[in-house]
Amino acid sequence: MTAAPSRTELQDMLSRIDCDVRATADWGVPAQYIPQLAQIEPAQLGIAICDASGECFTAGDASVPFSIQSVSKVFALIAALGRIGDQLWYRVGREPSGTSFDSMVLLESEAGRPRNPFVNAGALVVTDALLSGRAPKQALAEVLGLVRALSEDDAIHIDADVARSEQATGARNKALAHYLDSHKNLREEPEKVLGTYFHQCAIEMTCVQLAMAGRSLAGLPGAPSVLSETRARRINALMMTCGHYDGSGEFAFRVGLPGKSGVGGGILIIAPGRASIAVWSPGLDEYGNSKAGTRAAALLSEATGWSVF
Amino acid sequence: MTAAPSRTELQDMLSRIDCDVRATADWGVPAQYIPQLAQIEPAQLGIAICDASGECFTAGDASVPFSIQSVSKVFALIAALGRIGDQLWYRVGREPSGTSFDSMVLLESEAGRPRNPFVNAGALVVTDALLSGRAPKQALAEVLGLVRALSEDDAIHIDADVARSEQATGARNKALAHYLDSHKNLREEPEKVLGTYFHQCAIEMTCVQLAMAGRSLAGLPGAPSVLSETRARRINALMMTCGHYDGSGEFAFRVGLPGKSGVGGGILIIAPGRASIAVWSPGLDEYGNSKAGTRAAALLSEATGWSVF
Amino acid sequence: MTAAPSRTELQDMLSRIDCDVRATADWGVPAQYIPQLAQIEPAQLGIAICDASGECFTAGDASVPFSIQSVSKVFALIAALGRIGDQLWYRVGREPSGTSFDSMVLLESEAGRPRNPFVNAGALVVTDALLSGRAPKQALAEVLGLVRALSEDDAIHIDADVARSEQATGARNKALAHYLDSHKNLREEPEKVLGTYFHQCAIEMTCVQLAMAGRSLAGLPGAPSVLSETRARRINALMMTCGHYDGSGEFAFRVGLPGKSGVGGGILIIAPGRASIAVWSPGLDEYGNSKAGTRAAALLSEATGWSVF
Amino acid sequence: MTAAPSRTELQDMLSRIDCDVRATADWGVPAQYIPQLAQIEPAQLGIAICDASGECFTAGDASVPFSIQSVSKVFALIAALGRIGDQLWYRVGREPSGTSFDSMVLLESEAGRPRNPFVNAGALVVTDALLSGRAPKQALAEVLGLVRALSEDDAIHIDADVARSEQATGARNKALAHYLDSHKNLREEPEKVLGTYFHQCAIEMTCVQLAMAGRSLAGLPGAPSVLSETRARRINALMMTCGHYDGSGEFAFRVGLPGKSGVGGGILIIAPGRASIAVWSPGLDEYGNSKAGTRAAALLSEATGWSVF
Repeated sequence: MTAAPSRTELQDMLSRIDCDVRATADWGVPAQYIPQLAQIEPAQLGIAICDASGECFTAGDASVPFSIQSVSKVFALIAALGRIGDQLWYRVGREPSGTSFDSMVLLESEAGRPRNPFVNAGALVVTDALLSGRAPKQALAEVLGLVRALSEDDAIHIDADVARSEQATGARNKALAHYLDSHKNLREEPEKVLGTYFHQCAIEMTCVQLAMAGRSLAGLPGAPSVLSETRARRINALMMTCGHYDGSGEFAFRVGLPGKSGVGGGILIIAPGRASIAVWSPGLDEYGNSKAGTRAAALLSEATGWSVF
Repeated sequence: MTAAPSRTELQDMLSRIDCDVRATADWGVPAQYIPQLAQIEPAQLGIAICDASGECFTAGDASVPFSIQSVSKVFALIAALGRIGDQLWYRVGREPSGTSFDSMVLLESEAGRPRNPFVNAGALVVTDALLSGRAPKQALAEVLGLVRALSEDDAIHIDADVARSEQATGARNKALAHYLDSHKNLREEPEKVLGTYFHQCAIEMTCVQLAMAGRSLAGLPGAPSVLSETRARRINALMMTCGHYDGSGEFAFRVGLPGKSGVGGGILIIAPGRASIAVWSPGLDEYGNSKAGTRAAALLSEATGWSVF
Repeated sequence: MTAAPSRTELQDMLSRIDCDVRATADWGVPAQYIPQLAQIEPAQLGIAICDASGECFTAGDASVPFSIQSVSKVFALIAALGRIGDQLWYRVGREPSGTSFDSMVLLESEAGRPRNPFVNAGALVVTDALLSGRAPKQALAEVLGLVRALSEDDAIHIDADVARSEQATGARNKALAHYLDSHKNLREEPEKVLGTYFHQCAIEMTCVQLAMAGRSLAGLPGAPSVLSETRARRINALMMTCGHYDGSGEFAFRVGLPGKSGVGGGILIIAPGRASIAVWSPGLDEYGNSKAGTRAAALLSEATGWSVF
Repeated sequence: MTAAPSRTELQDMLSRIDCDVRATADWGVPAQYIPQLAQIEPAQLGIAICDASGECFTAGDASVPFSIQSVSKVFALIAALGRIGDQLWYRVGREPSGTSFDSMVLLESEAGRPRNPFVNAGALVVTDALLSGRAPKQALAEVLGLVRALSEDDAIHIDADVARSEQATGARNKALAHYLDSHKNLREEPEKVLGTYFHQCAIEMTCVQLAMAGRSLAGLPGAPSVLSETRARRINALMMTCGHYDGSGEFAFRVGLPGKSGVGGGILIIAPGRASIAVWSPGLDEYGNSKAGTRAAALLSEATGWSVF
């Protein structure tokens, strides 16, 4: 275990990593399936770190808002576990899938019980649990309220244009929802679950806001107390084994920290007891994870020695 | 982060956990495919912990020797990486598989490149790399020498009867080896790789020896220096995401520590920077992992607060 | 090749087979997913044969109307090929699938091109082709018109209640349609294709009407001329290799004639150049094919020597 | 049904088809995995037809011997059914597989029971049944004796060089055999089954000999009486649904006759009651079936009107 880096060291590290990654200029390609994501300039990189001292450090485009997409699955999971507790696990598993985020293959062989809450099928079940008979507006208000509370920032909102675009193009997610429905693993109408899910994914945040929101999972002093230590640890465990789809093993190997990525290019990374980290760069690698963001995370882990391993 | 438990606290914990698990008496069934494993009395439990102070603590059957089986994959991986370095990763992946330890399905869809070094197919590739043209005897001497050095115990040996039994019954492993061969992912003859692999799996150790052997991966002071800190961390990452086959996510969720299980009922668990832990109980759960051993590990993680999450 | 059975022989055969199958009383269970099918009395059996002489022979419940369900895929295929020709085959294959009728596994590995027009996914593509920009009403009028022309019976109609029930319960088909849409293998809105498909499946016919409708595929003298001899032969080939889902090989083995089954318990069977046969019994076997109907077909094939092999 | 073509017509047809196919010069590439097959000049085409009159007609390279490879699976099946009867079907299925000839995927999901006797795994089970405790030499003598009797030609033999080459390169088949063994679906040692199988596949025949050998399956007058009419029909049914691996549906669609192909470029085709046909051209298509041979078969079916559909 390494000694915690000093304030100045941490700020220097961030600047150096920001420089290094930008110099490489290997940005990847932003998600192409909706115009709002496809149009984004790929050569952007933001990093934000909130550490145990209560301070936040930033580099690059840390204040540029982006669509958090699948990172929202973490917040929806916290909310759904808060609402229905561990009985959620009867309906969704806790194992890595070995397949891509929207695969139907394992879903079929396992009779409609998604592998984990971070593949799309699993996230739809979580959103269904979150609804629990309520209107989409109420469930969304709960997730958004949770995110605002965790970030201590009431300006965070849902980008309705992005949600609408997802709705228009989300054929694969629609297939997954109806498939879950065919196995009676949705309580609500598939269309209702989908509408809620597309809005939840369209939450817009900056790296600073996202790093703030992760402090509770990292168990940092002063973070809002919205979930037990045990639950936080377990969600971190899921982020470690399943947070990057079919690239989860690689992220664990290279970065050594639990993380959850989104197709908008954001990654929330937890260094338990030490820091909450958000990186963002819109270009993606072959698994749908931020390319420059992952590189920044790997450099940061190396520089800080924060790997949990 | 919790303060390290004192010596007395740790010893008390171990005894209490040993009692608790034995009281539950939910032992599972030992592996049935070879007589040497099938005959073992299931109601046994051993725990050993080597911590950062250099001391070792034990409970129950911590000095009973058992067949380490797939736990040996960790030592073979250390040895193979020492021999051929990171080029090993061209031949084997680093992702959890989402399927059982001896599945051929993903192997087929990924053209003979095993998902990770801890599924059987991946371990066969590791053993092939370890051979690198040498005689089985030499490769086995290297692995055994490594284990003895890590454990600081030259009495550790291979149980030849177990190796012979495996050879006689290992049809699935033979299928995997020939399948890898059909994709040119073995350099040696399949029979030679299999013979070496079956012997490597037949190493016999006690919990105390196994916990001693894990100190280097845990980065404990005074541990033999056989691999770099980076390599140790990366192997720990693989143990976290892939160490328990299709139950890896569950182990991460419940225990929160990297671990590697074997069908003999042993589990090596690493608490980075804090301790190396070995548990053993021969009865298995549905995924082929020690049932009482996993329970002991979960209680221990909870009691010590050593979860990396 | 056997000499054609005489009129009396054929009628005697039918009566004997009807008796034999009823005596066995191994009826299977009707499809349970919609009330209209689940409520049907299972102990029913109808057989109708139209032979080359132009005559029709019947036994048992040959005049009881039933929901033809997937047998309609044959008529939709004839209509779609008539409309867009062989370019249909760019969008759907001609190979047996080796999986159940509503599996998504092969669909995923083959990027949204269904294996053949008789699995549900393939039939949805056929219906999509049949729509070709038209309203569902028009496409349905075409299929229904075709069936009426082939049967020379304008009384044949769609059971709107059945169609509505399918719509309410067809989650798996909805999943398939959206999945096809995600691979751009639908030109129309999924909901439009599904609505048309559910209505097409709800066509109600008797064995007599169905046997009449099959005369053109059998190439019988006097049959309505709606498709070329080559096309008829090719559709028969598809019925042989793919007409009974994952039980197609078994039907070929036991009956030796091309056939297409439906979950309503009907089977259309073609003896090329000799006869068009319809059997119906609502109880199903494990693959979703009529249990007593298949048995009647096997006995009939044996008695007549009409197997094409 | 078309009238049987006259002798002169048939001979003219053959010559014309031979010309047409050669003119196209789309030969495909011979199997590359063993030198004996890889070295063969691809621009060769042989056709032989034995019809109900007892005469044989030939075109092109109909007297050039070639390795029959998987066509031998038909003869092994006849022999094994003769030996152990229909209990064989407890160990191997009768359904098309929807996957390639040497896939392990379905084998895994179906617990070691191969889909049909014409995929490699199924053929290994058939060979195992044929051995039934005997020495390989005896089982091979039985298959070879059967082929010679069917062809009325005692000169037919096994090419030992080909058998040896297969043995040296057959890693995938070895994997399949050990996999079957792991599911207890072999009675004999895997190596014994493999050795027998590789020799059986190395039988060398000409188109003339192969067409002669198929007369019994076609039920032609004067053919050796080695299997019942029912059994012949059922084997023909299997050839129709499963005879061309993952191209079986396509062959049924285009040719409309039961056929069994081999990687040596030969195809045995049965026109029940009419003719036994052998075509050979060593270049293969993407599924491992003879490219020019399949084209010749399609032209022949069209010209004769012998499609069973």
